Amino acid sequence: MSGFVSLVGAGPGDIELLTLGALRRLREADLVLYDALVETELLELAPQAKRFFVGKRAGRHSIDQDGIHALLIRAAKRGQRVVRLKCGDPFVLGRGGEEALALEAAGVAYEVVPGVSSAIAAPALAGIPITHRGLSAGFVVLSGHAESAFGATVDSLAPGALTVVVLMGLRTRAEIAARLIARGWSAATPAAIVVGASHEGRERWLGSLATLGDAHIDSEHAGVIVIGAVVDLATQIANEHLPSVAAARSL
Amino acid sequence: MSGFVSLVGAGPGDIELLTLGALRRLREADLVLYDALVETELLELAPQAKRFFVGKRAGRHSIDQDGIHALLIRAAKRGQRVVRLKCGDPFVLGRGGEEALALEAAGVAYEVVPGVSSAIAAPALAGIPITHRGLSAGFVVLSGHAESAFGATVDSLAPGALTVVVLMGLRTRAEIAARLIARGWSAATPAAIVVGASHEGRERWLGSLATLGDAHIDSEHAGVIVIGAVVDLATQIANEHLPSVAAARSL
Repeated sequence: MSGFVSLVGAGPGDIELLTLGALRRLREADLVLYDALVETELLELAPQAKRFFVGKRAGRHSIDQDGIHALLIRAAKRGQRVVRLKCGDPFVLGRGGEEALALEAAGVAYEVVPGVSSAIAAPALAGIPITHRGLSAGFVVLSGHAESAFGATVDSLAPGALTVVVLMGLRTRAEIAARLIARGWSAATPAAIVVGASHEGRERWLGSLATLGDAHIDSEHAGVIVIGAVVDLATQIANEHLPSVAAARSL
Repeated sequence: MSGFVSLVGAGPGDIELLTLGALRRLREADLVLYDALVETELLELAPQAKRFFVGKRAGRHSIDQDGIHALLIRAAKRGQRVVRLKCGDPFVLGRGGEEALALEAAGVAYEVVPGVSSAIAAPALAGIPITHRGLSAGFVVLSGHAESAFGATVDSLAPGALTVVVLMGLRTRAEIAARLIARGWSAATPAAIVVGASHEGRERWLGSLATLGDAHIDSEHAGVIVIGAVVDLATQIANEHLPSVAAARSL
């Protein structure tokens, strides 16, 4: 009996943004390893599975990346169907590639099930299309995490050409704004912060690069920063809230 | 009785990459307006709905963008639940923003339901993580469609800093490669083309910027181009095929 690992994108949180493929993997799972931002509602879709938290708590990893690899490999070798449930998409700043390589090296069968990325969905749910004819024919997604050396990436972006979406950048937003302005971006470039995009307590801040650093954000949820002319559309596009989790449950 | 329009992302094609929210909208729909790349299997999820093709056929629009807006508005004002079903995500080079603005201007209630974007899923299904620690801390998505003036966008990208994903760029791939090389990108930068990512006849071409223009692609499916160091991981990551549509149907 050989096990199997599915690296599954959970989407931004709302159960309605889970894929049918992710739902099926959860229902069939023996073991689910999940991150800090994965919602309890999603875990309840895997009632038969043992569920194991492998994310960060209070800024600290409960287990390191090698430890996660070891857990995945051991469970699969015992014949279990394992779901590695990741926020958003497994390959968008989610270390899914490292897990895939570790499984490959260990000879464990696995698959990747892409998910809805917060980089795209969070702006959308806040009324911001990240591309828009005449305003932006493309977008950049990057990590604002200090250890990712985002500075060099930010410096590589020519002013205004593309919409910029920053994940994990709430803490470094002042530095990101300063670097873009130093790189030649207009301080008046519209900027937005979307927090808890697919949760009930969704919060949206609108401003500019000049004010981004001082934006007051007080939330436990993850935030996405959007920079570019498309942000101005947010005041014109009133995306209705996605229906509640309860409504989706009737599926 | 007032109608409602849902701008819904269908994902890259495979029913398993449809969201639960999209499934619910389809089941409840009175009318579905769909594009050329939307699969028949997805349309069958809306058995009660009238289904209307509004995409391109043989390179020609069956109806122009204003015509689509008029159809959406008229149906909603008649009290219908309308699904505007778009490939991938509605706001990723999908003109969803224009439709949202038109609905807003007409006073029609609407929502956006984000989907899995081919920009992320197509590389993933071909074994390419678009971000990877040490190789790429971010990615750019842009349109290779000639009328989007992709040249200026391509010129704005500093060599090698980010993974580049090009949608609708199969026809212009030689020009894109030439511009990146002129911009200072190494001709040896790995490049891939993924065609029909979530279909059975998926095809993957691997090469470099030097050979991208000459890649032989003979497929009716849409293709995604990926450029950057992460492409080299494709030979190490053997993503299992997603299960067939039949398996997903049992949901």
